[in-house]
Amino acid sequence: MIDSALRFVLECEKLKGIERRSRPIGLPRRENSAEHSWSLALLAMTLIPAIDPSLDTLHILKMVILHDIVEIDAGDTFCYGDQGNKAEKEQAAAKRIFGMLHESLASEFISLWEEFEQGATPEAKFANAIDRLLPIMQNHANGGGAWPEHGISIDQVLTRNRNIEAVSPELWQHVTALANEAVAAGWLKPAKTVPNL
Amino acid sequence: MIDSALRFVLECEKLKGIERRSRPIGLPRRENSAEHSWSLALLAMTLIPAIDPSLDTLHILKMVILHDIVEIDAGDTFCYGDQGNKAEKEQAAAKRIFGMLHESLASEFISLWEEFEQGATPEAKFANAIDRLLPIMQNHANGGGAWPEHGISIDQVLTRNRNIEAVSPELWQHVTALANEAVAAGWLKPAKTVPNL
Repeated sequence: MIDSALRFVLECEKLKGIERRSRPIGLPRRENSAEHSWSLALLAMTLIPAIDPSLDTLHILKMVILHDIVEIDAGDTFCYGDQGNKAEKEQAAAKRIFGMLHESLASEFISLWEEFEQGATPEAKFANAIDRLLPIMQNHANGGGAWPEHGISIDQVLTRNRNIEAVSPELWQHVTALANEAVAAGWLKPAKTVPNL
Repeated sequence: MIDSALRFVLECEKLKGIERRSRPIGLPRRENSAEHSWSLALLAMTLIPAIDPSLDTLHILKMVILHDIVEIDAGDTFCYGDQGNKAEKEQAAAKRIFGMLHESLASEFISLWEEFEQGATPEAKFANAIDRLLPIMQNHANGGGAWPEHGISIDQVLTRNRNIEAVSPELWQHVTALANEAVAAGWLKPAKTVPNL
């Protein structure tokens, strides 16, 4: 069981080579999915006591530590772009990579990853919400970051990340404030106005 | 409480700019302390069931996620090099960075970091052991990695990382096998022979 665990962790080193669209705050390079996963884990353990102490912190930490490992085979998909056959590629990746582990651990990790993807349990909803929150915070702190590069509008940000509101109205207030500041600064396109008919 | 949590997590982005001596396996660049912390968390949740399921996994995950944050102010120290006034600088860093949080969370995080540094509890012993194990695995998988660059010998590796043996004799066997292979490959200097008197 130790041998398969070590082989799995060596394989997962590859996540450090998977680039995301966002950049770490203040750094010129792209962020990789391993350091992003660390940020999420840190954000989870820091925010849970403020938002909902009844959540299962261990379960959430395990989920966010594992959530991007499938990208080793399937790559990162920009959340405002074409999702292609992402789900199928990620399923195969989960089977191959988590399948390197001893059977009981492989089942646990696959089930944690599926729970995150389905986003139905309170823990998965929280994990998905902070996964969306983090790049918004980074883009805002980086003078717009990936938003102006891809011509994103405030409508896209607020529609795409609406899942944050159900988890915490207070966090959602924070998101809308950042998005409005980004429009004022010219980093996000303004909302499309409804034409007068 | 949410505001201070978000400010803290933004500040901790800086850990992504702190470089270690080791390199992610197969990548030419240095590893940063944020992605290293993610690897440790993954290694912890993967190895605990094999080594000692009675350990408190949540406690260990929190410890390893936080353990290097003080490097934002104090920098990374090579474990085979001069440790300088590391302890003092790290204490001040812990006070400043964790002190950004709401009082109850600040106390919890400082106490987790101190527990890791002191290495006295079973959870801290495990966290310290895997923190030592990981660069050994990386250097071995990277054709010697940081070892030949700094002229390290097998004595140094086995003395410096002996804490792994107390946590798991099976992991220690793995370490000594990797170190012996590294000597055979010329990546580590051989043990100093005792001169015949």
